[in-house]
Amino acid sequence: MVHADASNFSAGVSKAEAYEQVLEQAEGLVYDQRNWVCNLANVAALLWHAFKSIPEPSPNVNWAGFYVLDPKVPEQLILGPFMGKVACQTIKFGRGVCGKAAKTAESQIVKDVHAIPDHIACDDASKSEIVVPVVKDGKVVAVIDVDSAVVETFDEEDKTALESLAKLLAEACDW
Amino acid sequence: MVHADASNFSAGVSKAEAYEQVLEQAEGLVYDQRNWVCNLANVAALLWHAFKSIPEPSPNVNWAGFYVLDPKVPEQLILGPFMGKVACQTIKFGRGVCGKAAKTAESQIVKDVHAIPDHIACDDASKSEIVVPVVKDGKVVAVIDVDSAVVETFDEEDKTALESLAKLLAEACDW
Repeated sequence: MVHADASNFSAGVSKAEAYEQVLEQAEGLVYDQRNWVCNLANVAALLWHAFKSIPEPSPNVNWAGFYVLDPKVPEQLILGPFMGKVACQTIKFGRGVCGKAAKTAESQIVKDVHAIPDHIACDDASKSEIVVPVVKDGKVVAVIDVDSAVVETFDEEDKTALESLAKLLAEACDW
Repeated sequence: MVHADASNFSAGVSKAEAYEQVLEQAEGLVYDQRNWVCNLANVAALLWHAFKSIPEPSPNVNWAGFYVLDPKVPEQLILGPFMGKVACQTIKFGRGVCGKAAKTAESQIVKDVHAIPDHIACDDASKSEIVVPVVKDGKVVAVIDVDSAVVETFDEEDKTALESLAKLLAEACDW
């Protein structure tokens, strides 16, 4: 199997099955590879192709990737690997959905981003969002961020699966 | 203008115009931001959306991104930010098209990857490739790698434009 096959999902795959494949392939990819850039780049690709393969509304995902701790500025996130359009480069802890997840270390599901007063619009097309913190030794080191072009794309099933993925990445990478 | 707009290209844009926009937007993005992960992630997104917007055969691009020097293993590249399917994690200098560009510090245009004896198949769908080294102070610090699902996708125009982009990134980031 070549690497690209990890991101090929069967037609008609359910959300549960797709996340199972994402987690299984992510485990394989991080085996013997602790470089966080390399691992997050491949996991962003896995997630993107999973969302495009599962039933509506998930294929409306228009951005999937990571923000990580800015090594230069305290309490600030900086853009990491992702799939989608050009994105905001830095986000202060506490600002917007990513900043809130980073500050509170708690996952955020936002059904309609336009209802959030301090929502950071990297892309006007984005309508809903899920952000899950990656926590290593009690400290947020990154967040998984996924945006969708339709409202109410993400639910508890996404949250549970992305939290498992975050846990795997927290342990599998040198941050 | 929100960040995502940087990756929106006009309908009917020519290759020359698209590369002009890529270079202009890349210059804007790296202004005041020297973090290489952040910059390469956004530039991969710029390139991907440019290729999807210009005339055939460029929209057949199926992978666009970066490999960088592996900080842990000498003479080895490691996967950086990209758009596309899951990719090979590490590439030894001298191996395959990326490895050759890294070793020789010279751009490589491959019309048909299957004619290359030591081609590294991360994705069976890839048929042609261009790799351009990013050289800082005489040392290759990364390569821009673009794959296409059809043969003979890349020409001298791509090479010249990507070499300008590589030059910009070499100076704009802390490697």
